[in-house]
Amino acid sequence: MSNELYRAERIMARINDLASISDDANGIARTFGTPAFLKGRSKVQEWMQEAGLQTRVDNIGNLRAILPSAVPNAKTFVIASHIDTVINAGKFDGPLGVLMGIDLLEQLIQTKQALPFHIELIAFCDEEGVRFHTTYLGSKVVAGSFDESVLDKKDAAGIALWELIRQIGGDPKKLSQDAIPPNNWLGYFEIHIEQGPVLYERGIPVAVVTAIAGQRRITLGFKGMAGHAGTVPMNMRQDALCCAAECILTIEAFATDHVKDLVATVGKLEVVNAASNVIPGEVTCTLDLRSANEAHVTAAYKFIQTVVADICKRRMVTLTWNLVQQTAPVSCSPQLNQWLAEAVQNTGHELVELVSGAGHDAVPVSAVAPVTMLFVRCYKGISHNPLENTELKDIVATIQVSDNFIQQLIQHHS
Amino acid sequence: MSNELYRAERIMARINDLASISDDANGIARTFGTPAFLKGRSKVQEWMQEAGLQTRVDNIGNLRAILPSAVPNAKTFVIASHIDTVINAGKFDGPLGVLMGIDLLEQLIQTKQALPFHIELIAFCDEEGVRFHTTYLGSKVVAGSFDESVLDKKDAAGIALWELIRQIGGDPKKLSQDAIPPNNWLGYFEIHIEQGPVLYERGIPVAVVTAIAGQRRITLGFKGMAGHAGTVPMNMRQDALCCAAECILTIEAFATDHVKDLVATVGKLEVVNAASNVIPGEVTCTLDLRSANEAHVTAAYKFIQTVVADICKRRMVTLTWNLVQQTAPVSCSPQLNQWLAEAVQNTGHELVELVSGAGHDAVPVSAVAPVTMLFVRCYKGISHNPLENTELKDIVATIQVSDNFIQQLIQHHS
Repeated sequence: MSNELYRAERIMARINDLASISDDANGIARTFGTPAFLKGRSKVQEWMQEAGLQTRVDNIGNLRAILPSAVPNAKTFVIASHIDTVINAGKFDGPLGVLMGIDLLEQLIQTKQALPFHIELIAFCDEEGVRFHTTYLGSKVVAGSFDESVLDKKDAAGIALWELIRQIGGDPKKLSQDAIPPNNWLGYFEIHIEQGPVLYERGIPVAVVTAIAGQRRITLGFKGMAGHAGTVPMNMRQDALCCAAECILTIEAFATDHVKDLVATVGKLEVVNAASNVIPGEVTCTLDLRSANEAHVTAAYKFIQTVVADICKRRMVTLTWNLVQQTAPVSCSPQLNQWLAEAVQNTGHELVELVSGAGHDAVPVSAVAPVTMLFVRCYKGISHNPLENTELKDIVATIQVSDNFIQQLIQHHS
Repeated sequence: MSNELYRAERIMARINDLASISDDANGIARTFGTPAFLKGRSKVQEWMQEAGLQTRVDNIGNLRAILPSAVPNAKTFVIASHIDTVINAGKFDGPLGVLMGIDLLEQLIQTKQALPFHIELIAFCDEEGVRFHTTYLGSKVVAGSFDESVLDKKDAAGIALWELIRQIGGDPKKLSQDAIPPNNWLGYFEIHIEQGPVLYERGIPVAVVTAIAGQRRITLGFKGMAGHAGTVPMNMRQDALCCAAECILTIEAFATDHVKDLVATVGKLEVVNAASNVIPGEVTCTLDLRSANEAHVTAAYKFIQTVVADICKRRMVTLTWNLVQQTAPVSCSPQLNQWLAEAVQNTGHELVELVSGAGHDAVPVSAVAPVTMLFVRCYKGISHNPLENTELKDIVATIQVSDNFIQQLIQHHS
């Protein structure tokens, strides 16, 4: 058995071990700060220690391990992902990057590799944002961009974030001490499943992420006129659902015409006071618009807003349009990506470059450090779902690429 | 003040009296057999008796009053509507026809009009079908088409229909005795608000109903593939909501092209496991299709089923199509309609003929007797809603037309 296959099997065994720790007997759930989360984090901490790493838990609850360099004033290169999950999650989203990081550093320790920079491996405590409806809690602390007003947010049980931090042993007043100062960052590397179908469809194990898409989230309201489905002639209707349907199709056609630039999704749609024999008088829906290119997302946003308003005007339906969230696209570091691309090719894989449509901890970190990400193929692109799967051979490929990448990084900084 | 205006004001006062009797302090609700229903029925019974009519309550709970003819073997002409309501109902839907019937018969009594046929005025106990999810309970008994298997149906509190009938004084085993034998029917006349906007838009108080539309109710299921809204490119999606939207627009366009023949409504639509950042994997919706012409509704049904299947096939979305209800169109009696149309013109109103898109008690009665219906203008076509309104001047016009119609009917049968 090759060394990489042995390593991959151990990673897979740990993925399964961690997946068995859950707050929910019927599926995987380890949201931030829960008993299963804490138990899972302890398990990861044991594996870090077994690898020979010194570990600590910071004030927000991130699990951090340092592999130090002997070089004076060495900078820090961070390898990270998250260990919190959504509800009814898959096994790989988050943990894969952390467990591969442990394996990667163990190799460096065992081969007594001299490091020109410190490597810090971090298991972020909350990327998904399920419990407090706000994402990247862990990585924002490390990036020094944690917004303290969020501490007053409460979970569904009424527990405030600051209260939870205290309960699990942190000090909410000392979060800023856990940031890596901007000057100390050398860079950031995150391994994550693709959560999309491109690698699966193309039959390729890994991809280099060029950018993380910017996002706009809009809620739309359509107000027409309810009426009896039997008695109002078609040409006297102001059917809010037909109006919404026309908007949805127009948005879909526009995004499909710009398939390389953006994605647009109407994910939620509700007919208010719906009944089978009532013409829909009011419909609400959401629109999620993403692109790696800020100019494209802005242009798409404006175009869609205009055509939707035109459709509503023609149909005598009142439109409300609310931009509820906006995040700018993040570009990965050209230099780090070049080395990662070389690592992909050096290990015999076809180079695929992808934009990440999903957000990742690399987003807040990108404000203070050059970032790069490696995507790993997942079954049919399915994620946030028990069907989420990554095969052993893809973990092997990821080990090969990551080893090669770190070696290049060491070489270029030596 | 004209006699008709005086009569209309009394009808309006009674409409308001009856509306004040409700099971719900915040709106009108008198579903079948409730305390408010019984109290409302007693009130209507008092008014019938004040008019000089002999009344009885039959076994299902219909309130019935006879104005007898002295002619041997005279047939029976029925004037009727219903006194049950939906939840949060308007004041006019149902009661208007009953209260106008009382007024009409009172005129015949006061003018000592000799009748060549009996007139029976009926306040049906359950047209809306809210409590037991089955419509026309009262009129089916009178028409002799009551389905006894319905007696075992239970309301939300677990009370069976047969139990309720007993509670309110009826004998569920004697329902068939309350039918008017087919040979005894002369005809049937129902006054009802239009529940549509045509008379309101055209500025005309009344219309003759030519037919009551047949209806097909279909539930549709669309099963595509859920996915992450950020990571699945537009051209790799099987978005169930976009597919449903295309079907909705196609259905709307088809029905609008055939605006004189049919109406088609998607009233309910649900995205299963909806989230703003998830591509809809599954959508369910309803389709309500109505036409006065059975051939047209059949052709429309087949056409829509075919195009919807084609859209789903092209989009790789699995379609389920379930026909859940089918009622045939009912034509009103050409003879009765001719006399009603003459009455409209005799009293100086423009003749408008309408198809009723909503169902009415005339539907079950049409199986045993010639039926006719007079529609009364209502505010913006709004019904089943506290905003439901009919103006005094329209009640005046309805009195004039109805008086004239009954006089013609008497004349033609004398």
